[in-house]
Amino acid sequence: MSNRMVKLARRPKGMVKREDFTIEDGPVPQPSPGEFRVKVEYISLDPAMRGWMNEGRSYVAPVGLGEVMRGYAAGVVEASNNPNFKPGDAVQGMFGVQRYAISKGERVFKVDTRQAPLQRWIGGLGMPGWTAYFGLLEVGQPKAGETVVVSAASGAVGSVVGQIAKIKGCRAVGIAGGPDKCRYVTQQLGFDACVDYKAGRLGDDLKAAAPKGIDVYFENVGGEILDTVLLQMNLFGRIPVCGLISAYNATEIPSGPKNLRAVLTPRLRMQGLIVFDWAARVPEALAQLGTWHKEGKLKLREDVREGGIDAYPDVLNLLYTGGNLGKLVLKV
Amino acid sequence: MSNRMVKLARRPKGMVKREDFTIEDGPVPQPSPGEFRVKVEYISLDPAMRGWMNEGRSYVAPVGLGEVMRGYAAGVVEASNNPNFKPGDAVQGMFGVQRYAISKGERVFKVDTRQAPLQRWIGGLGMPGWTAYFGLLEVGQPKAGETVVVSAASGAVGSVVGQIAKIKGCRAVGIAGGPDKCRYVTQQLGFDACVDYKAGRLGDDLKAAAPKGIDVYFENVGGEILDTVLLQMNLFGRIPVCGLISAYNATEIPSGPKNLRAVLTPRLRMQGLIVFDWAARVPEALAQLGTWHKEGKLKLREDVREGGIDAYPDVLNLLYTGGNLGKLVLKV
Repeated sequence: MSNRMVKLARRPKGMVKREDFTIEDGPVPQPSPGEFRVKVEYISLDPAMRGWMNEGRSYVAPVGLGEVMRGYAAGVVEASNNPNFKPGDAVQGMFGVQRYAISKGERVFKVDTRQAPLQRWIGGLGMPGWTAYFGLLEVGQPKAGETVVVSAASGAVGSVVGQIAKIKGCRAVGIAGGPDKCRYVTQQLGFDACVDYKAGRLGDDLKAAAPKGIDVYFENVGGEILDTVLLQMNLFGRIPVCGLISAYNATEIPSGPKNLRAVLTPRLRMQGLIVFDWAARVPEALAQLGTWHKEGKLKLREDVREGGIDAYPDVLNLLYTGGNLGKLVLKV
Repeated sequence: MSNRMVKLARRPKGMVKREDFTIEDGPVPQPSPGEFRVKVEYISLDPAMRGWMNEGRSYVAPVGLGEVMRGYAAGVVEASNNPNFKPGDAVQGMFGVQRYAISKGERVFKVDTRQAPLQRWIGGLGMPGWTAYFGLLEVGQPKAGETVVVSAASGAVGSVVGQIAKIKGCRAVGIAGGPDKCRYVTQQLGFDACVDYKAGRLGDDLKAAAPKGIDVYFENVGGEILDTVLLQMNLFGRIPVCGLISAYNATEIPSGPKNLRAVLTPRLRMQGLIVFDWAARVPEALAQLGTWHKEGKLKLREDVREGGIDAYPDVLNLLYTGGNLGKLVLKV
């Protein structure tokens, strides 16, 4: 029994490579007073991870060289010196890309695996779900009858955004890459329409899918898709900027949206969002998402990859190549 | 006596040329019942005018070919069949680029020329002032102690933005082109600092002028200045997007701000604003700006150009070349 860990060895350039990490074994860590040990079972692969590897100003400090890669994960408490967490408790938290984690319980939530399988609590019922919940409702502020468009619509956040939009009485339109993902978005998730940006007619297809214009655009990707969407935004539209996947592996500073007048003249509001800002309200999101899930209004799917800790670099890259369908999770 | 008019002859490409307009004489128009005639004395030159000449979607319909050029102006009522406006009344309104205008009184305000000279009522006490007032206070929402940066700081809107920022207890930093404008901004208008973007060290100079970072950036110009400012914005900063002078004469779609991550990670709010949205609250702005002006807290300056109606195309271009100091006004 050993603790296998993925440590950041150097700052990646572009897509991550195996050589950007060292994967090593160490002793299984022992909890000090007030701490507990988690056996990690599932690790969440999130687009933001790529940003955490970079130096420079961001919303959290970068992962240090030689440190275990930061990662959101779910597992089971094995040994505990903390009265709030008992062996056998299923938990989610920032446990890192490793087999065993020590925690004091900060920002760790106990989850109910009878209500949903463990991996779902780091997906639609976890941080990606909370991001969709607060980002759409608090920043996007959709009203019934409006049209909500979301990019990366088959992904962990986008799939929840569109379904909440439907629950709130909006027209939900996804943007996704390829016919398979689009079929999943409309037929499985119940979006009103989905536009395949790879088909090369994004502007026209979007007009057909959102004939009354776009009131809320939930941005996950950036780049040319944003340029195109901007020109179809309605007066006083809102653009929660949640992610910019298209830029995360860029080696040069990418250019932003062309034609910023498209923001000025329709009086758009474009606003960055980081889910941590609603940390105090996570229980509300958890409860509401859980209820919708139980009622069958919120369909969730994980794309669970085998291969264990060692597969981390390759599995992570699937996010940026569009190789996953549903919330991407690594099974330890 | 004739009515001399500037009519749009064709859609300009790039900076306007004389040939884009026909300048012609017609009979002095007579007011019908409910109407009155204004003898126009000052015409406001506004950066937005260039946009009004273009086809395509915007916040107002473009000026039609063959129509009198749209323009905000001030003058005196000469003849009236409207009980609310009497001969001799000084007024401001959308009278167009011509010597005589007919109006029904819609969005026309009577002004008090004992309180301020006529031309000032289309400057800091007119629409540019209202834009600064609502744009900064409603969209920018500055709090005492914060740092407010404004581009085109010596211009009609920017000069008022910085002075309101000071009144509200903020640090006011201008960005302007050249040492003369910067001196005017700090020594005459009372900004805490002004950065000369033409000096070629915008990033460093801005850091020195705004050592605690930037909380509100009031955007009038766009382009590279926005790129630079974005990287110095504080968490939860606000960017009212009022104008994009740098792009108005562009013949190709300009690229927007580089590195949109600079919006995401500090959770910035970037929001387009058009003063018409606060039309119902103009009396409030007029009263407040007038009071500050009377108290000496709001210094206003017009750059009045002679040459009459015929000089319109050349004088307009001064806005885009930076050739004016203070609110640019054409004397009829």
